[in-house]
Amino acid sequence: MGIVVQKYGGSSVADAEGIKRVAQRIVEARKDGNDVVVVVSAMGDSTDELIDLAERVSPLPAPRELDMLLTAGERISMALLAMAIGNLGQEARSFTGSQAGVITDGSHGKAKIIDVTPGRIEQALGTGAVAIVAGFQGVSQDTKDITTLGRGGSDTTAVALAAALKADVCEIYSDVDGVFTADPRIVPTARKQSRISYEEMLEMAACGAKILHLRCVEYARRYDMPIHVRSSFSHHSGTWIADHEAEAEDMEKAIIAGVAHDRSEAKITVVGVPDRVGEAARIFEALSDAQINLDMIVQNVSAAATNLTDISFTLPRSDGQTAMSALSRIQEVVGYDSLLYDDQIGKVSLIGAGMRSHPGVTAKFFAALAAAGVNIEMISTSEIRISVIVDEPQVDDAVSATHRAFDLEAAEVEAVVYGGTGR
Amino acid sequence: MGIVVQKYGGSSVADAEGIKRVAQRIVEARKDGNDVVVVVSAMGDSTDELIDLAERVSPLPAPRELDMLLTAGERISMALLAMAIGNLGQEARSFTGSQAGVITDGSHGKAKIIDVTPGRIEQALGTGAVAIVAGFQGVSQDTKDITTLGRGGSDTTAVALAAALKADVCEIYSDVDGVFTADPRIVPTARKQSRISYEEMLEMAACGAKILHLRCVEYARRYDMPIHVRSSFSHHSGTWIADHEAEAEDMEKAIIAGVAHDRSEAKITVVGVPDRVGEAARIFEALSDAQINLDMIVQNVSAAATNLTDISFTLPRSDGQTAMSALSRIQEVVGYDSLLYDDQIGKVSLIGAGMRSHPGVTAKFFAALAAAGVNIEMISTSEIRISVIVDEPQVDDAVSATHRAFDLEAAEVEAVVYGGTGR
Repeated sequence: MGIVVQKYGGSSVADAEGIKRVAQRIVEARKDGNDVVVVVSAMGDSTDELIDLAERVSPLPAPRELDMLLTAGERISMALLAMAIGNLGQEARSFTGSQAGVITDGSHGKAKIIDVTPGRIEQALGTGAVAIVAGFQGVSQDTKDITTLGRGGSDTTAVALAAALKADVCEIYSDVDGVFTADPRIVPTARKQSRISYEEMLEMAACGAKILHLRCVEYARRYDMPIHVRSSFSHHSGTWIADHEAEAEDMEKAIIAGVAHDRSEAKITVVGVPDRVGEAARIFEALSDAQINLDMIVQNVSAAATNLTDISFTLPRSDGQTAMSALSRIQEVVGYDSLLYDDQIGKVSLIGAGMRSHPGVTAKFFAALAAAGVNIEMISTSEIRISVIVDEPQVDDAVSATHRAFDLEAAEVEAVVYGGTGR
Repeated sequence: MGIVVQKYGGSSVADAEGIKRVAQRIVEARKDGNDVVVVVSAMGDSTDELIDLAERVSPLPAPRELDMLLTAGERISMALLAMAIGNLGQEARSFTGSQAGVITDGSHGKAKIIDVTPGRIEQALGTGAVAIVAGFQGVSQDTKDITTLGRGGSDTTAVALAAALKADVCEIYSDVDGVFTADPRIVPTARKQSRISYEEMLEMAACGAKILHLRCVEYARRYDMPIHVRSSFSHHSGTWIADHEAEAEDMEKAIIAGVAHDRSEAKITVVGVPDRVGEAARIFEALSDAQINLDMIVQNVSAAATNLTDISFTLPRSDGQTAMSALSRIQEVVGYDSLLYDDQIGKVSLIGAGMRSHPGVTAKFFAALAAAGVNIEMISTSEIRISVIVDEPQVDDAVSATHRAFDLEAAEVEAVVYGGTGR
């Protein structure tokens, strides 16, 4: 058959038993006649342990050295996985990111893949071996230093390798069976989606669904590489992420892909901003200079009597302190009254390419929230998504009510969570 | 000044505190105006932990993958060390064996260094940075696979790099202050030798002194690279190993370098070998075919009445089983009577280039052993060494008596053992 790229996260290879179980699956895929390339993350919590060690020797470790350190994690898991596969009678060879030809820029800790030249991988496949590749890492084009790709790095490695090798599919294994219509911890009857488009998956990822990182889906969409998200703990078919838009006659296609939620954001309101040209620009310039990524932004209509307006926006909670400081520094220049900071908020998003052609989705969404007694603080929309900010304690109710209102429930409970969470 | 290569073993960098202490020393050496290259082993017992993990996934791991796994250990220690140095305000960059240009043959687990091309190290030194290099590892010339150098590998890496960089000295740090005239655990008044020749150190290493591996000393002698053996836990000057033979006028030079001992050997006696041409050759051929390295060999004069002789030899205990099997298989062909196996033996060696020109050393040695009631089972000599095999329980007495007889005692106790033992 063709080439299959499989990616296993840290929770799938957390210990010797996990590694042996994964090895078994890989050998099965090889026996099915595929050329198999496996991308693997570091074992369980080993990356966190390395970071702890680093903090104990230096409060602010050099990024180049931190990358050198962290890449030891995948080196351990990939070598052990290759051994476990060898023990089953199937030859396997492990390769670092550098050996696998994952060429990146020089941004340590958050390097971007520039090119993938998998000559050694193709050579290994040519001899009948399974190739095991360290996820999350590469080598910088200019200095030949070891780099890491940052969050979502291993998934991105897998998709990038799959694209370079012209693989048939990139299988991303984790501890859940696929992409669900909502987080099964909140909605136990959430339904597994058998297929979903790149666009929808991008919105899901951006709105807090943790199953795949935005960056990996973007990469897959650019190279039109189908992703099959599935569990390494079961043999169920998972969710296929691909260009389903092309299938015009797709009757199975749901209007709504799912309900996502995110508790990682905070809201800042700048109160009493003079409603003059350029004042808002100054505020966002200050935030941009501080390297802060904003999500939703709302500006109220100014009250006629005062000619003052309020500007609210959401941002990652981890950037809250930095943003407040940056804004404080420009208070006199802008002349605003005060700042309000609220990190007791949550974002609930309804996502689905189908809503384009189905009017009334927004009305139904808001009605469901109202019936559940959930107050909407901010609203933002795209062509295939509606997001609202609500009080954090109301997130669960909002997700459940929305899921029910759009008839997303499965006939029976489908979701099983098998282990921890990987990188 | 010049280039200093320092090597720190696993016991010196066993934890965050150790790494910070070593970083301080390295920065001091840099501040003295030297270009500093540091070779570092894996932290404490981390290599053993990785081997345990490997055994849990595969009883017989592929050597290539075992090397990939084990090299993660130095990757962790070297990155942490570079961070700790950076934290003291001194730039440091870590390099894998491959990045440092340590080119080896393809014998995984016991690779030999073929060439050292330290271009990236020189570049780092040129920018004023300290270069940290992973010990024990290299990259194979043909397949570009990661290799490990086997026992004594990190010391050998240090000497090889020092030679390639034309360093002034290769400092080997461990948890003892230098090379002593005997093991301080047996002879508390053992004296630290301020200098010793390559030849003497080779004999010491071959005779069980564990401070340096044979291979590293051989490398140093070949390239005439002075080694300074010292402790990372103190600032005492240690032992200089160099070509002291050249210093003809060296009044300080001792006749005896030290008393070494070794409890790792076993003795096999082949009883009743027909005293015919070629029988001994057959025995040693069989042992050679079984890849067994012999140490001492003794053949008794044959008893005239029977025309039979006994052949005894010593070998590593770990090879005892293999050797006995190999010999059993040739019993009929050779026609010997029986085999005796004894692993309750010890080897005590007196070493010193001075004994060449001092007659009577042998007589004094044997007299000291006799006075201590120690029975000599086998004897072997070289130009600068006399070794005897004794009963294992008598090893301590034999070492002490010999040390005393040759007036090797220090005026006061010099030896301190600071920590565990490194690789």
